[in-house]
Amino acid sequence: MYPAPIAAAPIEHGGDLAAARLLFPGAPEPFIDLSTGINPYPYPIPRLTPDLFTQLPEAAALDRLSAIAAQAYGAPSAAHVVAAPGTQILLPLVAALARPGRAAVLGPTYAEHIRAAAQVGHRVEEVADLARLRNVALAVVVNPNNPDGRIVPREALLACANDLPAGGLLVVDEAFMDVGASGLSLAPDIGRGNIVVLRSFGKFFGLAGLRLGFALAAPPVASRLRARLGPWAVAGPAVAIGAAAMADHSWAAMTRARLAQAASRLDALLSGANLKVAGGTSLFRLVHSQAAPELFQHLGRAGILARRFAREPTWLRFGLPAGERGWQRLAAALAADGWASTGVAAPVRLPSSS
Amino acid sequence: MYPAPIAAAPIEHGGDLAAARLLFPGAPEPFIDLSTGINPYPYPIPRLTPDLFTQLPEAAALDRLSAIAAQAYGAPSAAHVVAAPGTQILLPLVAALARPGRAAVLGPTYAEHIRAAAQVGHRVEEVADLARLRNVALAVVVNPNNPDGRIVPREALLACANDLPAGGLLVVDEAFMDVGASGLSLAPDIGRGNIVVLRSFGKFFGLAGLRLGFALAAPPVASRLRARLGPWAVAGPAVAIGAAAMADHSWAAMTRARLAQAASRLDALLSGANLKVAGGTSLFRLVHSQAAPELFQHLGRAGILARRFAREPTWLRFGLPAGERGWQRLAAALAADGWASTGVAAPVRLPSSS
Repeated sequence: MYPAPIAAAPIEHGGDLAAARLLFPGAPEPFIDLSTGINPYPYPIPRLTPDLFTQLPEAAALDRLSAIAAQAYGAPSAAHVVAAPGTQILLPLVAALARPGRAAVLGPTYAEHIRAAAQVGHRVEEVADLARLRNVALAVVVNPNNPDGRIVPREALLACANDLPAGGLLVVDEAFMDVGASGLSLAPDIGRGNIVVLRSFGKFFGLAGLRLGFALAAPPVASRLRARLGPWAVAGPAVAIGAAAMADHSWAAMTRARLAQAASRLDALLSGANLKVAGGTSLFRLVHSQAAPELFQHLGRAGILARRFAREPTWLRFGLPAGERGWQRLAAALAADGWASTGVAAPVRLPSSS
Repeated sequence: MYPAPIAAAPIEHGGDLAAARLLFPGAPEPFIDLSTGINPYPYPIPRLTPDLFTQLPEAAALDRLSAIAAQAYGAPSAAHVVAAPGTQILLPLVAALARPGRAAVLGPTYAEHIRAAAQVGHRVEEVADLARLRNVALAVVVNPNNPDGRIVPREALLACANDLPAGGLLVVDEAFMDVGASGLSLAPDIGRGNIVVLRSFGKFFGLAGLRLGFALAAPPVASRLRARLGPWAVAGPAVAIGAAAMADHSWAAMTRARLAQAASRLDALLSGANLKVAGGTSLFRLVHSQAAPELFQHLGRAGILARRFAREPTWLRFGLPAGERGWQRLAAALAADGWASTGVAAPVRLPSSS
């Protein structure tokens, strides 16, 4: 069980190059950030008119965004869509939809789910087995999972939702579902009322700085979330860019193919360096290696930031390099002789933190 | 007392031109939006680098924004500053800092405060007298007030905070304090712990679409709010533009003078039309008139949107026109003969809604 103090403790995340530069002060620039699962081929930002910045976002524009998102994600209607400034800010609001009680998060996974559930008064447990998601007030599954790409079949999730007690809620975080196999999403199933699906805009569209995310839920649940966010929750530029990007289905198809190709190239690089790719999605790959701590240091000194995990020191997650220069630098760093011999020979398993 | 259902009911706001166009389909374009209190002379948007959109906002950039905001607002330190995607989203989070109990909002005022307090379980009452803000779990004052510009002296607010029971909280919404007299803000007083000050970026800087706002609070309280928002609450463009704008103290001084001048011009226009200016700030003026409903209709047909109030049908609030053309159109519409005779002679007081 995670005790209450975890609710306030900050969690380490990828994507903080300023912190990386402090950790590796002599590293060559530009630093290459492979520590996130953000698409390095961003959707081209359309021209932004000044009124997107100066005026309050209009309700009609938000309705249009919601309709486009419903279609892109396969939700029944715009009334099932809640737009938010990122999914992160939704986590405690969604967790609070279930009356405080036992919460179970299928893990290991994105750590903020445990923190958010604890914040709103749940007694949270990380469980390794889907069967232990039954008989809880709140069940959370990240699907496909971050960082290992583990996929829970749709039928298994629906069975889990069926087994929840009255008032119980299944939250399925589909942050990486844009690159998942089709037919996996639970977006079509939210009408039943005890399922909330979270979708992230910034990762797949490569625009994480924009802060845009969605909760998909039955209309009464969606209304409760909307009421908590209040009017104008999403910035004007995010409403406009989000609507343009999510309506562009051909860009999405092209990008899925491009990301799959890039992920294969990453697999080849990692395997070529005798690293075992244990899983992932087209936006990141997870490596299991006893030498992970040394590899993290070696890459850092070469100006390449991978994602390490305090609780799982033998894991390293790699996002996709942005351009050919990045690929070359990653290849060179992985091919460098002797990096594994600079650290301890047999890395010890660190005690679990968060 | 406001019953629970109000927590979910949407509230009408200014700034929705799409709705105005439906209301006044034949009106000349461009529609002039005077329904908000947003500065029509926006801070010039600096060049935005692509990484502000593509990358997650970095912790170091947010820290810098908080330090700049602390200086601009007169808060003791960056640790006292919580940046958020607009103050609106903070309202229920701030109201929830006080244990659910009796809440009192000094009114009439910005309606979302009552809704937010009700949402998180308070029994909310709108009170007309500062003395009735004592012995409540949550006391809320908008200062200067919206829409009438009423100012509560700092000493009276500190006395109110002193009289709160243990665990009680005074929230001072200083959304329009950027154009208030100096020395009025409670930002320097937040260290004591039972005061939270809200500051809005978008109104004074004329960039409401950006969604940026702040809670100023004692560091332990600020930490609780930050934990609820989670990482990356503010979009990259908002972090960058906010830091540039709030560090530009000469722009702020110039703009305060410019807004005061524009507000005087608005006063002259309104008075010239025999309308009584009952209050306001440099960003808006409030008119009291029995003919307010007809004036709203008349202006709407002329393509000018004022802000009406369902609960106070004799009130109309006017923001500042953006350019000379807007001033001329407002002057012409106010000077038009006979507009007051098109409606009912003696407007009836509509039943209170929200």
